[in-house]
Amino acid sequence: MEQHNHAILRMHCPDQSGIITVITGFINENGGNILYLDQYVDRVNGVFYMRVEWDLEKFVIPKDKISDYFRTLYGKRYNMTFRISFTEHVQRMAIFVSKMSHCIYDLLARHTAGEWDVEIPLIISNHPDLKIIGEQFNIPFEVIPITKDNKAEQEAKEIALLEKYNIDFIVLARYMQVLSTDFIERYPNRIINIHHSFLPAFVGAKPYHQAYERGVKLIGATSHYVTAELDAGPIIEQDIARVSHKDTIADLTHKGRDLEKIVLSRAVEKHIQRKILTFENKTIVFN
Amino acid sequence: MEQHNHAILRMHCPDQSGIITVITGFINENGGNILYLDQYVDRVNGVFYMRVEWDLEKFVIPKDKISDYFRTLYGKRYNMTFRISFTEHVQRMAIFVSKMSHCIYDLLARHTAGEWDVEIPLIISNHPDLKIIGEQFNIPFEVIPITKDNKAEQEAKEIALLEKYNIDFIVLARYMQVLSTDFIERYPNRIINIHHSFLPAFVGAKPYHQAYERGVKLIGATSHYVTAELDAGPIIEQDIARVSHKDTIADLTHKGRDLEKIVLSRAVEKHIQRKILTFENKTIVFN
Amino acid sequence: MEQHNHAILRMHCPDQSGIITVITGFINENGGNILYLDQYVDRVNGVFYMRVEWDLEKFVIPKDKISDYFRTLYGKRYNMTFRISFTEHVQRMAIFVSKMSHCIYDLLARHTAGEWDVEIPLIISNHPDLKIIGEQFNIPFEVIPITKDNKAEQEAKEIALLEKYNIDFIVLARYMQVLSTDFIERYPNRIINIHHSFLPAFVGAKPYHQAYERGVKLIGATSHYVTAELDAGPIIEQDIARVSHKDTIADLTHKGRDLEKIVLSRAVEKHIQRKILTFENKTIVFN
Amino acid sequence: MEQHNHAILRMHCPDQSGIITVITGFINENGGNILYLDQYVDRVNGVFYMRVEWDLEKFVIPKDKISDYFRTLYGKRYNMTFRISFTEHVQRMAIFVSKMSHCIYDLLARHTAGEWDVEIPLIISNHPDLKIIGEQFNIPFEVIPITKDNKAEQEAKEIALLEKYNIDFIVLARYMQVLSTDFIERYPNRIINIHHSFLPAFVGAKPYHQAYERGVKLIGATSHYVTAELDAGPIIEQDIARVSHKDTIADLTHKGRDLEKIVLSRAVEKHIQRKILTFENKTIVFN
Repeated sequence: MEQHNHAILRMHCPDQSGIITVITGFINENGGNILYLDQYVDRVNGVFYMRVEWDLEKFVIPKDKISDYFRTLYGKRYNMTFRISFTEHVQRMAIFVSKMSHCIYDLLARHTAGEWDVEIPLIISNHPDLKIIGEQFNIPFEVIPITKDNKAEQEAKEIALLEKYNIDFIVLARYMQVLSTDFIERYPNRIINIHHSFLPAFVGAKPYHQAYERGVKLIGATSHYVTAELDAGPIIEQDIARVSHKDTIADLTHKGRDLEKIVLSRAVEKHIQRKILTFENKTIVFN
Repeated sequence: MEQHNHAILRMHCPDQSGIITVITGFINENGGNILYLDQYVDRVNGVFYMRVEWDLEKFVIPKDKISDYFRTLYGKRYNMTFRISFTEHVQRMAIFVSKMSHCIYDLLARHTAGEWDVEIPLIISNHPDLKIIGEQFNIPFEVIPITKDNKAEQEAKEIALLEKYNIDFIVLARYMQVLSTDFIERYPNRIINIHHSFLPAFVGAKPYHQAYERGVKLIGATSHYVTAELDAGPIIEQDIARVSHKDTIADLTHKGRDLEKIVLSRAVEKHIQRKILTFENKTIVFN
Repeated sequence: MEQHNHAILRMHCPDQSGIITVITGFINENGGNILYLDQYVDRVNGVFYMRVEWDLEKFVIPKDKISDYFRTLYGKRYNMTFRISFTEHVQRMAIFVSKMSHCIYDLLARHTAGEWDVEIPLIISNHPDLKIIGEQFNIPFEVIPITKDNKAEQEAKEIALLEKYNIDFIVLARYMQVLSTDFIERYPNRIINIHHSFLPAFVGAKPYHQAYERGVKLIGATSHYVTAELDAGPIIEQDIARVSHKDTIADLTHKGRDLEKIVLSRAVEKHIQRKILTFENKTIVFN
Repeated sequence: MEQHNHAILRMHCPDQSGIITVITGFINENGGNILYLDQYVDRVNGVFYMRVEWDLEKFVIPKDKISDYFRTLYGKRYNMTFRISFTEHVQRMAIFVSKMSHCIYDLLARHTAGEWDVEIPLIISNHPDLKIIGEQFNIPFEVIPITKDNKAEQEAKEIALLEKYNIDFIVLARYMQVLSTDFIERYPNRIINIHHSFLPAFVGAKPYHQAYERGVKLIGATSHYVTAELDAGPIIEQDIARVSHKDTIADLTHKGRDLEKIVLSRAVEKHIQRKILTFENKTIVFN
């Protein structure tokens, strides 16, 4: 779908006059053709954010030197935090599931239809129930049951698998198991979860039960990066659906499924496109 | 807009076979023409809810005896909680405001346009800032400033005014003052508030600041009946608007205004139409 | 998911006092327990519509006599058009596809997860591209290519297959081929299509191109029953997504996919639940 | 609300490498501090669009020379179409109404609350019905009835008033009268209309009647710049509301009011903020 010769710079630094001119000048003068540019200034905190994507075809700086040059010429001077990625590197995504299939089917259907520039070489589950999906889509499906007692050793197995398959990021597709802090810290801003409420409402277990009890007129879903604190990581995407007094907990659960899969897939798409930047527990989601 | 000779029954009782037949039979057999009927069975808790509106023109039971007959014939037998209202009684609504005008203008514009079958004979404010609105719409505007020290006596003045003007229900149109429990208990399910968050997220003060801090991608507004516990009463209506990392607190406040006024007005409209029933801190909002 | 001993009555007739009493009385008096009831009076045209679902467990009229009794006792007297269905009859649905997989994957994922009380024994396509999906989900996938010249004979093959598999209704999951009037008339209100615009805007071919040309700020999707006139049948469900000047036709197509699959699946669900009634090219969609 | 010393450049030109660098460089090098920048490349048609807003406080080029310098230095070279505005010029807006008050009240309530940096010195109506609103808000309200026979001379009176009051742009707040082509051509992209359908569906008269006839499940509203062809000008903003088979034409009209006023006000706000650029019958609406 995408040609594989683009560079993507995501950066932030203390705001200062002229940064756009400097960065776009650097790209243009060295033969890069800017394809997309999105920038934003947080005036409250005085921070400048930018994402630029440019074609490398006639860019004179060798790919493996770009980061180095950029750091030397501008990174240090402007006190930037930045990351340069290349679209030719197709990211590898692992899916974690438990017993519910709606999110994983949505992810795999998009992948199969060629919607996303990503590879999905591994599925991990703490239950064997969805093993058939691995077979249907011809993806290794590893069952790693987790109990209170074996958590550390089972997570070690998971990490070994993630490394074996060179996984770049992890999608928790209704994976009903809390990851240890150790595990999470290995993948900062690289584990995407879907929580079935409009966070920060209804943190933790059984949000549809909580929503039913409170008598809300909207239910929601929230995709976010996983951090050590439960359901408190940077929010990537949220959406809601209208409900009424007629809806039982089963109805909320049923209506919520469409929300969950769409909200999760939107977040995964933005991540694949390298359009997300995190800063102080918030996301900047570029266009 | 509406003819003033309809009866409206709102009721709930333990669910039991045949209740619809019995009630619709009672109305039909006595010459009432059913105009709207909406019912719903809460199977989880075994409760039957219904709202029926019928034309009284050829109804043989005198208006002032209907409740009595209904209680004797069916109310006791089915253990019903019910209320019968008459559309010829045009309800009288008081508006409480502070310094922000968007909600009160929306309410008054609808009233002026004849959208609602209601009277608005009184505005109460704890600040003089919006006095001009009383003049524009020719409605008494009473300024009753409230401090920690004078709350009890000032609320007494408010209650005296509400009684003087025969107020049926109160709309808090961004009234930035917490009512005392004593005051609230005088008007059960008759005080409608707008809170500028999707409750139960961001209870209490400064919800837009809280939303900004958490980095949500949606902001919300919630209209609810006021109960003694802050922002915890039965929810009538909620809606949301999409925001992004670009939105400052001022932007959230600005975007939230449209939400607040629409969500409040939808709740007020349902209340005026006598389409709301409350049960165990939830609302049933009939069609 | 559902027990298979419910009767569902969908009816309409000229509005008249007392019909609810009569019908609910008929069910109650004969031992039926009403589970859901939704009714509505079209006052403009004077038509009464109702859907009632009741438990047959203790119903004294034998299942195969209910329609007959009902017609004799009430149907003729009230000039009703009605249909009584039984949930123990699990409907059989055929899916027609072409080359795009997002809608069919969404349908099959729901079926696989047990969300719907339906059987899917047949997929028909005019292209071989999605044959793999038949294998993944173990459903016969028949390729019947259609050209201008062979349309009649190929549709005859399709009809033979539909009959062989006892198909109750057909879902066109982005099937890019117009059905003949003869074909359509065999399945009145039993062919559900998804059109990728908010009808009646952008009828016919390439609606996303039309939307792009017009510069709309919303794109839509519409599910409807297929009638002889293209994209003009009774609308079941619609929804929209926000777009901007930045979106190319490819972007609209991409954003539209989620809409299409969700809007189609909502319509299919309502059809499976027998909650739709059509009247003069409109649908009544019961709760 | 806004300080009055900003310049706003809106431009488009054939896309070409380096334009952002050149323009941002021009601003920075001459002492301008860029406050907002939004740009976008239409790759299909090869057009570059940009809006930049910068602080003039330390800008060395005198305000009345900026356009001239910019044209000489870059405008001609890059074949730009551009316009430079200054926030110190507060625009003057006229409102045209007929008999319905919901849109004009919404506009005036926002103005009164200080939400918008605009002046509203004139209301024109073809009916006297809403004269009271002019009095309430202390704005001249000119009644200019229009018939087939007097259209030319009455429009001449309107134009004289618009000139007398130095009106920059006109808002048709449910003004039920088609303007002549002559009139429209005097105010290109400066007349904003609200049409009560999701255009291009239901062009022309009585869109809610058309929507009812078609049995849609969504109604919409569209704000657009007025051009000679009816309801065919560049779309600025659209939104929808969900309806059902239960909604009569009166219900659609009632539900549509909230849509109309919000969609119109959003468009007016973007126009006031000088965030809209039109190109070939489409709008680019900057952030």
